[in-house]
Parts: sequence; C-alpha cells; structure tokens
Amino acid sequence: MTMVRERLERLRSWMREQEVGAFVVPSNDPHFSEYVAPYWGCRAWLSGFDGSAGTVAVAADGRAALWTDSRYFLQAEAQLAGTGIELQRSGLAGTPTLSVWLAAAAVGRVGVDGQLFSRTAFEEMKHDLAGLGIELVPLGDPFGTIWDGRPALPHAPAFCLEEAYCGEAAAGKLDRIRAAGPAEGAVRIVAVLDEIAWTLNIRGGDIAYNPVVVSYLAIESERAVLFVDREKFSAEDRERLRREAGVEMRPYTDFGAYLAACGGRTVVADPNGLDLCHWQILETAGAVLVAESGVIAGMKAVKNPTETAGFRRAMELDGVALVRFERWLEQTMAAGGRPTEREISARLHAFRRAAGEAFRGESFGTIAGYGAHGAIVHYEATPESDVPTGTESFLLVDSGGHYLHGTTDITRTYHFGTPSEEQRRDYTAVLRGMIDLSAVRFPVGTRGAQLDVLARRYLWEEGRNYLHGTGHGVGHYLCVHEGPQSIRMNENPVVLQPGMVQSCEPGVYVAGRYGIRIENLTLVTAEGCPEGFLRFETLTLCPISLSAVDTEALDAGQREWLNRYHATVCERLAPYLEADEREWLRDKTRPV
Amino acid sequence: MTMVRERLERLRSWMREQEVGAFVVPSNDPHFSEYVAPYWGCRAWLSGFDGSAGTVAVAADGRAALWTDSRYFLQAEAQLAGTGIELQRSGLAGTPTLSVWLAAAAVGRVGVDGQLFSRTAFEEMKHDLAGLGIELVPLGDPFGTIWDGRPALPHAPAFCLEEAYCGEAAAGKLDRIRAAGPAEGAVRIVAVLDEIAWTLNIRGGDIAYNPVVVSYLAIESERAVLFVDREKFSAEDRERLRREAGVEMRPYTDFGAYLAACGGRTVVADPNGLDLCHWQILETAGAVLVAESGVIAGMKAVKNPTETAGFRRAMELDGVALVRFERWLEQTMAAGGRPTEREISARLHAFRRAAGEAFRGESFGTIAGYGAHGAIVHYEATPESDVPTGTESFLLVDSGGHYLHGTTDITRTYHFGTPSEEQRRDYTAVLRGMIDLSAVRFPVGTRGAQLDVLARRYLWEEGRNYLHGTGHGVGHYLCVHEGPQSIRMNENPVVLQPGMVQSCEPGVYVAGRYGIRIENLTLVTAEGCPEGFLRFETLTLCPISLSAVDTEALDAGQREWLNRYHATVCERLAPYLEADEREWLRDKTRPV
Repeated sequence: MTMVRERLERLRSWMREQEVGAFVVPSNDPHFSEYVAPYWGCRAWLSGFDGSAGTVAVAADGRAALWTDSRYFLQAEAQLAGTGIELQRSGLAGTPTLSVWLAAAAVGRVGVDGQLFSRTAFEEMKHDLAGLGIELVPLGDPFGTIWDGRPALPHAPAFCLEEAYCGEAAAGKLDRIRAAGPAEGAVRIVAVLDEIAWTLNIRGGDIAYNPVVVSYLAIESERAVLFVDREKFSAEDRERLRREAGVEMRPYTDFGAYLAACGGRTVVADPNGLDLCHWQILETAGAVLVAESGVIAGMKAVKNPTETAGFRRAMELDGVALVRFERWLEQTMAAGGRPTEREISARLHAFRRAAGEAFRGESFGTIAGYGAHGAIVHYEATPESDVPTGTESFLLVDSGGHYLHGTTDITRTYHFGTPSEEQRRDYTAVLRGMIDLSAVRFPVGTRGAQLDVLARRYLWEEGRNYLHGTGHGVGHYLCVHEGPQSIRMNENPVVLQPGMVQSCEPGVYVAGRYGIRIENLTLVTAEGCPEGFLRFETLTLCPISLSAVDTEALDAGQREWLNRYHATVCERLAPYLEADEREWLRDKTRPV
Repeated sequence: MTMVRERLERLRSWMREQEVGAFVVPSNDPHFSEYVAPYWGCRAWLSGFDGSAGTVAVAADGRAALWTDSRYFLQAEAQLAGTGIELQRSGLAGTPTLSVWLAAAAVGRVGVDGQLFSRTAFEEMKHDLAGLGIELVPLGDPFGTIWDGRPALPHAPAFCLEEAYCGEAAAGKLDRIRAAGPAEGAVRIVAVLDEIAWTLNIRGGDIAYNPVVVSYLAIESERAVLFVDREKFSAEDRERLRREAGVEMRPYTDFGAYLAACGGRTVVADPNGLDLCHWQILETAGAVLVAESGVIAGMKAVKNPTETAGFRRAMELDGVALVRFERWLEQTMAAGGRPTEREISARLHAFRRAAGEAFRGESFGTIAGYGAHGAIVHYEATPESDVPTGTESFLLVDSGGHYLHGTTDITRTYHFGTPSEEQRRDYTAVLRGMIDLSAVRFPVGTRGAQLDVLARRYLWEEGRNYLHGTGHGVGHYLCVHEGPQSIRMNENPVVLQPGMVQSCEPGVYVAGRYGIRIENLTLVTAEGCPEGFLRFETLTLCPISLSAVDTEALDAGQREWLNRYHATVCERLAPYLEADEREWLRDKTRPV
C-alpha cells in the first residue's frame, strides 16, 4: 500500500514537470498485444492490481482510480485497499466513464504514453475529452524514469518455423503483401506482433501464451527490415531470413530513427495497429502516409493447406492428451479422489507436455472451474480460490495448447454425479446450439453475426443468454484469439472464408451455481458443399461428455451429428491410444 | 417509337440550353415514394418503358440507355425496341453502371432534376462521378416544359383517420416529435409522405396502393404548416386539423417559399428524405441546418395498442376474405375449372371488397403466378402473360389489403394436384424456416439480421437460397413496405422493438418451374416472455396449405407451432363464417 502511494507520488511529480492534470495508464504494450511482457506491466506496478484488464487514471490533485470489469471486482478491491485508488466497476450502473471521471476531476490537460495508444484509439479519446473541455496530450513513457527495478525488455529465444509447418515461405508472403499495394515502392510498417510472426514465419517466447517476437517490421520493395534484438535468433536463422526473405535486422530501439528517415516516401501503416508516437514521427518526417488496416490480418486468417493439415494433426496430439486427462479424471473421481481446480490444470498441462517436442506450451491459462467458479467466465483458480471438484455440479475446463502444427482451444464440461433436471436441460440446450452451428451450411458471403443465433436459440427459448462471443478466430501456432472474423451477436462485416479457423463455444452461466460451455474449433470449407455454399469442418477431437445430455431432446439431425462426430473422434484418436484407453474412448463415444 | 425519339429530342434541346452533356431521369417522386402518381411518371413518358423500376440516361450526343432489373428485361426489351434507347440489364455481368456509361459517353457535365434526388443520394452520385471526371449539377424539372399533356398533380380526396383507428391524436404525435428535439424552437421539415400521414393521422388516395396525401409538412413549436391542396380535405377535417393539432394549410407549391424564409432559424431535415433543391434553398436562405434521420420513422414503426388491436381486426376481415377465396379456388379447381392468374387476382379483390366500408383497397398489386411465373419474384400477370392455373405445379398468391384498422400482406402457395417429391421437399423447407422464425424468442436488442438465418437454413442445407429479404416493416393503414426495421441477410442496425409489425416470408424459386413463398405478418411483443426477452406474435389469420407438406420432416416444435397456429386461425375466423365455410376451414386447419 505504502509502495503504491509512493509510486503514485513519483508519477505525480513527473506529471508536474509535464504540466498535465492527470495521466492515464492502460494495460497494453506498444504492439497492442492481448498479453504483455513484464517490461510493460506498468499499470500493475503502479496500482498493485495485477489482473489482466484495467486502466488507471491518476490526477495531480491526489485522486486516482482504476477501471476493471466484473471478473476482477473482488481481486481489485483487495489489491487496491489502502492505496487511495478508487475502484471503478465497469459495466455497473453509476460507474463514471474514464472521460467523465477526468472531467469531474477538472484536470484540464491529460497525458498518456503515446506509444500505448493506437492512432485511432488516441484520436477517439481525444475527441471524447475535447467534448468535455479536456485536452489530451501524448507524452513519453514515465516508467523509464520512475520504475526502479523495471524488468528488461523480453529477450526469449526465437526461431524460424519450418515450411513443413507453415506451408508458405516468408519470401512468398512478403511478395503477396507487396502486391497488395497500394503503391509500387511503398514501405509497409507492421507493429502487431502476430502479423510480423506470420509474415516472416518466426516464433518466439517474449510474451506469455502468444508465441511472438517483440519487434517492428518495415517491408520495403527489395528487403524487409526487422527491428528486433538479433540475439534472439540463432546465427543460422538470421542468415536464413537474410538469404531467403531479404530480412535485415536492426535493433528494436532503432525503429523510431528509421521512421524519421522516411521523409518523402510513401508509407503504409495501420492506424489501429501503429501507436500514436510512431505515427507522429512519420508525419513529422514528411512521409506520404497511407492508412490501411487488415491486409496481413486478412491473409493470416485464411489458413493454407499445410496449416489446415497441421491443425488436424495438432488436434490428434491434443485429443490424445485430452482423452488421457479425462480418463484419469473420471477414474480419480470414481475412486473417491477429489482433485482441485489447480491440480486439474496441472495434470492437463502434464498430459499435453507428454506430446513431446511438438508441444510448445499452453495457448492461454487453463480455466478449470467447479460449481460456482464455472459461472465466472474468465475464472483462473488461485491458491486462495482453489476448490476440490465435487459431484453436485459441473466442472468446466477451458484449455488449449500450441503445437508446431497448430493451436488448440477446447472447452468441455463434466458432471461426475447425477445431474439435476435443470442441469440436464441447460447442458442439452448448450449442446444443441453447438451442434446446430457446427452443422450449418451457408452461402458464400455469410458473416458470423448471421449464424450466431443458431448457437443461442435454445438458450433464448428458456430466457437465457451468454454475453461472450460464440466464436473467435484462432492463429496457426500463434495467438489463440485472432481476427478478423468472429461469430457473435454484434455485427462484424468480415465474411467467413474457406480456410478460416474459429471457435464454436456457446455456454450458459448460472451465477453462484455453475457454468456450462462446450467448445470446438472449426475450419470453414467448401468441401462437400454445392457450388456457392460453405460449411464448418470440426477440427477438435475429443469426446463431448454425455453424462448430462437429455438425448430425448436432441432432434434427429443433432443426434446424427453427435454420433458422427464421436465416431470420427474415436477413429482418429484410436491409433494413438493403448488398448484400455481405446476401450474407454469407445464407451465415451458410443452412439446415443 | 417515333414519339419516344421525338421526346428525347425535346429533352436534348432543353439540355443544350442547360449546357449539360447528359441528363438522368430516375423513377421516384420528390417524396421518394415507392409508387408515384402519374404526374411524376416522367421516366415512363420519356422512354416508353412503364415498369415500376428504371433509370434513363440521355446523352446529348444521341445515345440513351435505360437500366432496369431482371423482372423487367423482357418488357423493357419490347417497349424500348426502335426507340434508340439501349437496354442495360442491371445485375448481369458486363452491364456498365450508370456512372461508367456516363464516363464512356464522355459527357463532361451531367444534370438531374434536384427534386428527384435526396441530398444524400445526390452527394453520393456526385462523389462517384467526380471520381470519373464528371460534374453532377442539379437542375430544375424539364418535363414542365417538354411534356405536352402532362397529368395534373394528384388531387384525390383525403381525410382524418379517427382516433378509434390510429390510437393517438395528431397533437400528441406533434408534441412527441417536438420533444425529440434536437433544439427548442426548431422547425422540423417532413417530406416523406407516410411520415406526414402518420403524424397528422391523415390518409388519401394520391398514389396507387399507398394511402398518402401529396404534401410537405413543417412542424414549428406552436403550429404545423401543411403544404397541400386544401381542397382534398373536407371543410370539417380542415377545421379539425386546425383546431386539434394547430395545422395551418398552405398551397403545395408554397413550400419552397416557406423554406426560403427560414434564414437564421434552426431547421431539422432528413438528408435521406428531403430533396436536394429544397435542401439548397434552406442553405441559401441561411437556415441553421440540422441533419437528422429516422425520428418519425422510428415512432411510426412502433404501433400503439389501438393500432395493434386494429391489425388483429384487419386480419380477421382479411382472413374471412381469404378463406372464402381459397374455398372458391379449391372447389373451382376440383370441378375442373382452371381460372387464370388475372381471374384469380380479380376474385381475391372481390372477396376483400366484400368486407365493405372498412376495406380501403389493395395494399399492392396482387402477385398470382402459376408454375414458372411463381419463380418471378415480382410477377404481375398481364393480358399477354396470363395463364390458367394447372395441377402440375404451384400457384403462388401474394396479396394484401388496406383496412381502416390496418394493412395486410400475405402469401400462400397452393398445389392442386399431386406434388412431386422435390416440390414437397422445397415446400416443407420453406415452411420449416417460416415456423422457426415465427417461433423464436430473442433478447431485447436483437436485430433482424441476427434472426434471418432461421428462415433460410433448411434451404441452405439443400444449397438453395432466396435473394429477397425475409421481412419488411408494414405500415398501419399506410405503406405495405416501411422501415426502419428489416429481417434480411444484410446488416441493419435497427433493433426489433415491441410494437413493430413486419413480414416473415421465406421462399424458394426454381427458374422456369415454380416459386414457393409463405408469408405472415408478425408483431414484436414481450407478452409471455421472461424479462428481457421478446417474441413474434403472428397476426395473419389464414390456413397454410398442407397439400405439399411432408409432415414427417417437421420436428416436434414445428408441428406444435403449425397445429397451434391453425387452431387459432379456426377459432378466430369461425364466428364470421357460414356453417359450410366453417366446416371447410376446420378441415384445412386439422392437426398434422
């Protein structure tokens, strides 16, 4: 507490030099990553609140506040106690927005680190605040001076992913990107880390769960300049990138200087993906700026045949681990063992690790929530919250792995006792929606928002809903959440294209009692469809627990889908299993 | 042909005076009505093509072209023959857009009648053409001088709709509109005819099928000025409008002069609903213009309890007419009679007229299409196309009526022989989709595009689709097509609200063979839903033909919906029917 108060004072003294009445610290890094390296953990360091989502505003007059969402209310309350930072509960009626809070604090001039706001985000915030008579100014990073003992920039090893896994050489991707224009001879700036990783077929370990390499990329006509700590790569990979893709490496910190030398050149940059500071360097230098979003993200989203084959292989590796995990869990529970949520996560991780070299780590922190914990959508058990699994309620397990072949993301919900009528009804409604969306055939040009209702309608019939999306894109041994497509209630103009991989994950959450979610990954494909139509191929290979299914409530098509899916799971995984595991799986995938 | 050539030359000579290289004539009137009065039939007069949709471009150099869509290709080809006007088939590959055609004709400067383009449409076209090096200029109406024998402005009688039918006095509506802002003391300009009709509770007969009164409305703080031919109203209604709603009447042609006197006043106008000429008059006058769309349309779309009760009553009147019509048709077919499409339309109209005073006319031209004609989505039989109904294929009948209580729009598809397997499969797929959409329960905030898939998915399964919308809003004894809500594949941000009335009309069209469409009107309601959820109440009361239903293919919920619907139809209509009609209806609504 005292430490936090002291840190806030240090920031305030820096603010006085900068002549701002308030300073706002968001959670992201300059690449707008979902997870950030410790170096960018400024908001957590400053406030003491270390949840993944939160924004701090510090006013010069002594007030400070932190906005976070419902999943972190309890944690934030505890961690902010005594710091003097007010907890602002986002989403609750009566919680002021950041802008309104700043206006109430009468701060006049508000500063941010311009590197932590995309140009678009900065302009929007600036516009909002201007309406309240507040000026937003981009400043530098105060934490370089006020954070004693700040962690170093991440420096995990990185490497080139073989073409056998990625299916297209970096040189080919660079040519496709160059051909996407808009102007001959233009320089394209890339700051988003998974876009750089995809383009150059590089992977690393700089950020938890996201196998990216902290860097910037400038794609010129004849070469590409990668701003990165070159020591992350082996000499062999450096040489390979140079020879095969014309990649020249320069220090990460040289990026600004490079941009400053772009005067007179046509520079293509993404206003949602490049931070304001670097954008302004280009403007000041007199670059001819072309704002363009989505070019690389669009290419990356459409997986090539090697990648889709890799996803199928990753699902086999993952499926074997999941079958072993589920069998262990079931047997343990049957024998009266009651593993806790954290023990379950650890075991699952161990089963995945058994895949050997191909397994590269978890694709996100496992969510294992028993009973009421399952209803907390982003629950991650802590030593304090950890509980043993019981037989009264559901255990929800949402997990995933990175393999050299691809990334997985799967949720299964188990019941180890006798489900109540209500539990069966809810589980069956979720399953029916999952099946209907998995089985739909749709015309070319369809958007995710058009299909979303198929996953929700059985819940809606009961007056229930879930407020998260039904589907997100998934990277190929990259970020488990990637765009641009989605399947959700909100409109998203991106159409589903063959080669796109996304989740299908309806759920239902009964606060204080249980959560149910069933999630597979799917691939959009034209295979087996009439001209002009597409469908989803389900990639995930893992039995769907039948213990809470009301099979009478399934219609003929749903029953057929479930039986066909289970037959495929059994057929595809059996060759990799021991005889007794195979027998176990055969029972779990029996026709209903 | 010679006449058309002469008319084109007259227009060209006017164009030379105006110094434009081309002139474009659209199909609408200055109020952007779906149907236009003969006075605004300029495009038809000029080109000889009298289909409802078409745009003519006339170049000074002697070329001319007309764009129309597939439903009019044959008719336009015949009517344009020998006129020198090229037929441009919209929607076919290789057809140039209007802009491209104008660019190819190297016209330099293009004129339009600024009254026939909304400000938004004009700006968009201007922007498009500017990109091709063409200047778009707003001119006056050339047809005032070149059209000898032009019909007069419409002058059908108009009247005040009783509060017993409309449920809210004009004074109350005006107050609500005034309260919608944006500024105290502002003048709101209304040019869209159904918005004026709704606001003042007036109805008329100036335009076919749309019971509106050609007029403009200016809503001031203390009074409302209606620019209209006052002779349309009885002295009593004029006095009533003045006394009860503060409506002052001025001649229709005074509208421009009124706007020209608005200098310095805050004037609210809809850039999609006010034409460019009048918009420019306001700008020139120095009015403080506030562009705002959708305020009145949004209020009009949400029907009040009197209106929804009226819709239910209109459905009873319409249902009785439909039952009598269907019984006549079935008995005629059984007796070997083979009425033609036009005879069928005429008979249906006669059955509706039998409702007496409450029936105010058809809400659109009846589509009665047998066999291949049913596959032409906007087919309207002509003496040349008319064919007798047979027993090999489907007869599709899409029709509707205006009643003082409300407007109806219904499609039923009949088969009077033994349907083939394919016909049964298609009919059943359409019916299942119609039922699923009718039965869905959805959360507050849902948009039509989210629900649309429910009506299409069974067709998609077979690799089929229909390219029209699934649902359009319907006016209360007003336009049968009204916004702002819709249920279609395209995104429309308008959410479905309690009180909205719309169609539910999936279909399938097999070119050259048959069309199937089943259409009911529905009301959005919260009745019987859990908190936060809504559903559709089906308003239409008419049996759904069972002759081509594969009842085995219906799931339990669909069967239940169908039986419940039919029980309601029978119960609600029986009291108004003769004993033998009742017996017939009981058979048509038997449970499946």
